[in-house]
Amino acid sequence: VWDMAKSRFEYVRKFEQDDRLLHDTWIVIRIDGRGFHKFSSEHAFSKPNDARALGLMNKSAECVMQTFPDIILAYGQSDEFSFILKKETTLFRRRASKIMTTVVSCFTANYLFHWRDFFGEISLLYPPSFDGRAVLYPNESVLKDYLRWRQADCHINNLYNTCFWCLVDSGLTNDAAEERLSGTQSSDKNEILFSEFNINYNELPEIFRKGTTLIRQEVEESVTKLCKAKKEEGLSERLVQRKRKVVTAFHTDIIGEAFWSEHSKILDL
Amino acid sequence: VWDMAKSRFEYVRKFEQDDRLLHDTWIVIRIDGRGFHKFSSEHAFSKPNDARALGLMNKSAECVMQTFPDIILAYGQSDEFSFILKKETTLFRRRASKIMTTVVSCFTANYLFHWRDFFGEISLLYPPSFDGRAVLYPNESVLKDYLRWRQADCHINNLYNTCFWCLVDSGLTNDAAEERLSGTQSSDKNEILFSEFNINYNELPEIFRKGTTLIRQEVEESVTKLCKAKKEEGLSERLVQRKRKVVTAFHTDIIGEAFWSEHSKILDL
Amino acid sequence: VWDMAKSRFEYVRKFEQDDRLLHDTWIVIRIDGRGFHKFSSEHAFSKPNDARALGLMNKSAECVMQTFPDIILAYGQSDEFSFILKKETTLFRRRASKIMTTVVSCFTANYLFHWRDFFGEISLLYPPSFDGRAVLYPNESVLKDYLRWRQADCHINNLYNTCFWCLVDSGLTNDAAEERLSGTQSSDKNEILFSEFNINYNELPEIFRKGTTLIRQEVEESVTKLCKAKKEEGLSERLVQRKRKVVTAFHTDIIGEAFWSEHSKILDL
Amino acid sequence: VWDMAKSRFEYVRKFEQDDRLLHDTWIVIRIDGRGFHKFSSEHAFSKPNDARALGLMNKSAECVMQTFPDIILAYGQSDEFSFILKKETTLFRRRASKIMTTVVSCFTANYLFHWRDFFGEISLLYPPSFDGRAVLYPNESVLKDYLRWRQADCHINNLYNTCFWCLVDSGLTNDAAEERLSGTQSSDKNEILFSEFNINYNELPEIFRKGTTLIRQEVEESVTKLCKAKKEEGLSERLVQRKRKVVTAFHTDIIGEAFWSEHSKILDL
Ligand SMILES: Nc1nc2c(ncn2[C@H]2C[C@H](O)[C@@H](COP(=O)(O)OP(=O)(O)OP(=O)(O)O)O2)c(=O)[nH]1
Ligand SMILES: Nc1nc2c(ncn2[C@H]2C[C@H](O)[C@@H](COP(=O)(O)OP(=O)(O)OP(=O)(O)O)O2)c(=O)[nH]1
Ligand SMILES: Nc1nc2c(ncn2[C@H]2C[C@H](O)[C@@H](COP(=O)(O)OP(=O)(O)OP(=O)(O)O)O2)c(=O)[nH]1
Ligand SMILES: Nc1nc2c(ncn2[C@H]2C[C@H](O)[C@@H](COP(=O)(O)OP(=O)(O)OP(=O)(O)O)O2)c(=O)[nH]1
Ligand SMILES: O=P(O)(O)OP(=O)(O)OP(=O)(O)O
Ligand SMILES: O=P(O)(O)OP(=O)(O)OP(=O)(O)O
Ligand SMILES: O=P(O)(O)OP(=O)(O)OP(=O)(O)O
Ligand SMILES: O=P(O)(O)OP(=O)(O)OP(=O)(O)O
Ligand SMILES: [Mg+2]
Ligand SMILES: [Mg+2]
Ligand SMILES: [Mg+2]
Ligand SMILES: [Mg+2]
Ligand SMILES: [Mg+2]
Ligand SMILES: [Mg+2]
Ligand SMILES: [Mg+2]
Ligand SMILES: [Mg+2]
Ligand SMILES: [Mg+2]
Ligand SMILES: [Mg+2]
Ligand SMILES: [Mg+2]
Ligand SMILES: [Mg+2]
Repeated sequence: VWDMAKSRFEYVRKFEQDDRLLHDTWIVIRIDGRGFHKFSSEHAFSKPNDARALGLMNKSAECVMQTFPDIILAYGQSDEFSFILKKETTLFRRRASKIMTTVVSCFTANYLFHWRDFFGEISLLYPPSFDGRAVLYPNESVLKDYLRWRQADCHINNLYNTCFWCLVDSGLTNDAAEERLSGTQSSDKNEILFSEFNINYNELPEIFRKGTTLIRQEVEESVTKLCKAKKEEGLSERLVQRKRKVVTAFHTDIIGEAFWSEHSKILDL
Repeated sequence: VWDMAKSRFEYVRKFEQDDRLLHDTWIVIRIDGRGFHKFSSEHAFSKPNDARALGLMNKSAECVMQTFPDIILAYGQSDEFSFILKKETTLFRRRASKIMTTVVSCFTANYLFHWRDFFGEISLLYPPSFDGRAVLYPNESVLKDYLRWRQADCHINNLYNTCFWCLVDSGLTNDAAEERLSGTQSSDKNEILFSEFNINYNELPEIFRKGTTLIRQEVEESVTKLCKAKKEEGLSERLVQRKRKVVTAFHTDIIGEAFWSEHSKILDL
Repeated sequence: VWDMAKSRFEYVRKFEQDDRLLHDTWIVIRIDGRGFHKFSSEHAFSKPNDARALGLMNKSAECVMQTFPDIILAYGQSDEFSFILKKETTLFRRRASKIMTTVVSCFTANYLFHWRDFFGEISLLYPPSFDGRAVLYPNESVLKDYLRWRQADCHINNLYNTCFWCLVDSGLTNDAAEERLSGTQSSDKNEILFSEFNINYNELPEIFRKGTTLIRQEVEESVTKLCKAKKEEGLSERLVQRKRKVVTAFHTDIIGEAFWSEHSKILDL
Repeated sequence: VWDMAKSRFEYVRKFEQDDRLLHDTWIVIRIDGRGFHKFSSEHAFSKPNDARALGLMNKSAECVMQTFPDIILAYGQSDEFSFILKKETTLFRRRASKIMTTVVSCFTANYLFHWRDFFGEISLLYPPSFDGRAVLYPNESVLKDYLRWRQADCHINNLYNTCFWCLVDSGLTNDAAEERLSGTQSSDKNEILFSEFNINYNELPEIFRKGTTLIRQEVEESVTKLCKAKKEEGLSERLVQRKRKVVTAFHTDIIGEAFWSEHSKILDL
């Protein structure tokens, strides 16, 4: 009876729908922390940027890249990260659900796994989680604009938040600070920072202003190998040059063309 | 210039696709451990069932249910869990990606968060992750068959694995045990267990044989409340009766009708 | 070289996406005339209802039902028709594109093919066409509400149009008629028709007020068959009773329960 | 009561799903005659190619292009036609169902509407219909390969059919002809045609061998306009040069690069 049972019910698999993503198109997986407004405040993240929190985000993203070799680039800022899969990827036969859920789960797991390395004795009060989505970009031009959009978002939020917390630290209430900034443009905010707080915005750490771009870069290493020079001889150590791809972080501008022409082959990987 | 930049790139949002799931239809999110064959072996899970591992899975699923009140039932076995969202749910406007990624991320985060409570000093060697998918079931009959399918799968795998590890423990190689079981039916495996290992399969713990079904059950509690009997009087303690839904675990048969008629309102919640 | 060519390019098939519709769910194909405002006016349809035009729509829908046996019911009004496929249909493996395009093409072809039968010497000035869509309804209750929605739409438009053209015929400009009706409720419009034009709306032809519902009804026929009574005898004519399903039109209310209880098995076909 | 009714049921619209196609991507609509094996035989199409039938297909496709200005190219052969929409099209907000159903319906309507112009007194025995589908191609290279695939298909089928009907005309049964051709390559078929039937395949009409490619070409026309030379003068006729796009048919190779470099701007329209 049992031997029949499983197959009798197996028809329910037919209800699963094929969600393979269009071929020859870049797949972007963007993940974003759920309720990180509360999470950052309950874990006393420093404002507006917490170097430990960003370090943990970047570490988790790097681990995701180690797990999925078809990710060619990742860009992160605040509580979010975007992962670009090469356009020819056949990861999970391009099934959208499998790709986005495994990426988000892998990221989440790493975030918890490495928490202590960044936050030390500050323990997790509750488990943080992330949402995820898959978006297709059919050509290089829109794909780059996607990444530019995320970096422009980083810039605008960070400039605003930097001003906001300076104003609050200087004694304004949250409401007053918000009021003060409402309607201002970027130039106004730069000016406030400079004239009132003696801060040159452009000299703040790049990681805060530009976010983090992870790509795979070729490095040359010297490794010691044991080998036989000739068939009859014994083993001897030898220094060998080897090329290897390592995930490397940049905190530079990706809106202009410079980054893209310097790393012109990334998107063709 | 920056103020323009973000909006100039914002058109890339148009590439996100609307993935809202059909209304008035049960949404099942099934998650499954990635590479748990290796994970269970590297963390020395006992074979074929590890009570700690199942406890951690169930705990994580319970936390998912606390987080998402629209989940009316969850069924788990081995390294997988299925979550049933009520058919009228408007969680994330029924967006498939948001629902499946947050469920899988929430489960993953809880699995790591609660690891120590179940595995104590045995520490995680690397972060485990899960995949996820969303499947729609349009009527009660197919929805129940879906759950029956998972429980039948639990039964068949568990009976097989129980026999397999008995044979291996008794001295057979893995290959020999596999060979011995190939072509056998459920009745043959029951017989092997009974005659050769003195095990009555039906007396093994139900959690191993039937998996875990989590539902919300109403319980009546007595809670102490501070209240004024009359407007002019002071506060006094009073014992109040209160109804509350609590997530409750069952390890019983869900293939027959008994469970469903006993809990006849679950699916209508 | 040619023999290779085709297979060399065949990879482009991979770009076709699987669009099979959820199982065990009613599929509704609704088609609607494109630009029938202009088409009806250029072909001088009588206002607000043209019996020939409705006859041609119904004839075309009936032919669609003859072509696709899995259509259990069709409902039409104005320039639109909805076709309900039985929930278990495996037509074209439930591929959405194939189903909706063949239904809309079949309808269009029949509309042109049978034009002369309804419009006689009035010839087509240009080829009319239709759009189409597929919508899933997971249970009987929402499916019936779908059909009720279309019939309520028929009623409201028809009541309005009947008033509008009466007012225009009585001398008002189109704008004045519109103005006169703006803000009125059903009861007001009934009243206008009755008191000003001596028309009892409920006595107008049902086909105008209720649209057309096509279902398959069993009829018993007597057919003459040639058969041998006994093996050794010659052929002789015999009258045989036979049951057959024929597409039958109703112009009755489908909003209340009467129609559905009278034809209680339609949706289970 | 009626005034409420419609809005009470209107919730059923929520069951319609958003099916907008990825932006910045070419949309190909391919339509194909349903059961044209039977249709061509019942209407005595000449074998293997019927010039009237191809003429009617091409005429219908041209009318589709007149109706939808965003179609930049169409390719047809046998009972099928593919329509390429420019990659930026916003036709029907890129809704897949609307696009594919209106294209297939428009084609069907024109096929019936223009039948007499091509088949004269031979009347339609029953209404022919077409299926349709939408496929996305994200870059020029795969889009061209799609068109090459259809032309390679045309070539291979036509060479086969030409041989087949020559053999049948020469007295072979259908089965014998099939048998004779089984396992042969293109070169073998060319040889059979040449040595046994004195036919140089490459000299057969290009429309049969290459199918039909429709594009919009700019032409310069002289048109007579009535205009006033000076304000005070009367009207006088003047010959004006005007540029206009007209749908033009080619029966040439589109597999090699020549066609594409000659019409290098088509895909950018
Ligand atoms: N103090 C502090 N807060 C941060 C840092 N990084 C991110 N956050 C906070 C600021 C925002 O409130 C929040 C990110 O904004 P979101 O739009 O993602 O909102 P949130 O995650 O609360 O809601 P969501 O679930 O994504 O809709 O995380 C940080 O380094 N320091
Ligand atoms: N020893 C032991 N192993 C378990 C237990 N629960 C699950 N597992 C193992 C047995 C299976 O090898 C594995 C679950 O099978 P799956 O089909 O999900 O395979 P796996 O996760 O390796 O691959 P996947 O990434 O899901 O395709 O997890 C347990 O309690 N004890
Ligand atoms: N005179 C007259 N007009 C009719 C009759 N049946 C339908 N029509 C007209 C009235 C409406 O203007 C039109 C149907 O309305 P729709 O909303 O479908 O608009 P239309 O087809 O113009 O645009 P569409 O392409 O569907 O968006 O057809 C009829 O029997 N007599
Ligand atoms: N004699 C003749 N037959 C033609 C001509 N053009 C197309 N046909 C026929 C040959 C094929 O049997 C048929 C087209 O093949 P299909 O693969 O489209 O098959 P068919 O339309 O029968 O089935 P379908 O509904 O598309 O699956 O149309 C023609 O010019 N002359
Ligand atoms: O979450 P937001 O508000 O930054 O914007 P979003 O992520 O695009 O919105 P959603 O999470 O609802 O998709
Ligand atoms: O993972 P399996 O083999 O148990 O079966 P599945 O989960 O249905 O397969 P997949 O993970 O590829 O969807
Ligand atoms: O065409 P309408 O305005 O009656 O309404 P609709 O058919 O739902 O709109 P659309 O044709 O754009 O889907
Ligand atoms: O119809 P065929 O056999 O030429 O091939 P197809 O059109 O790709 O098949 P289908 O019509 O079933 O999509
Ligand atoms: Mg968000
Ligand atoms: Mg967030
Ligand atoms: Mg965020
Ligand atoms: Mg799996
Ligand atoms: Mg697993
Ligand atoms: Mg599993
Ligand atoms: Mg419409
Ligand atoms: Mg219309
Ligand atoms: Mg209409
Ligand atoms: Mg086909
Ligand atoms: Mg065909
Ligand atoms: Mg064909």
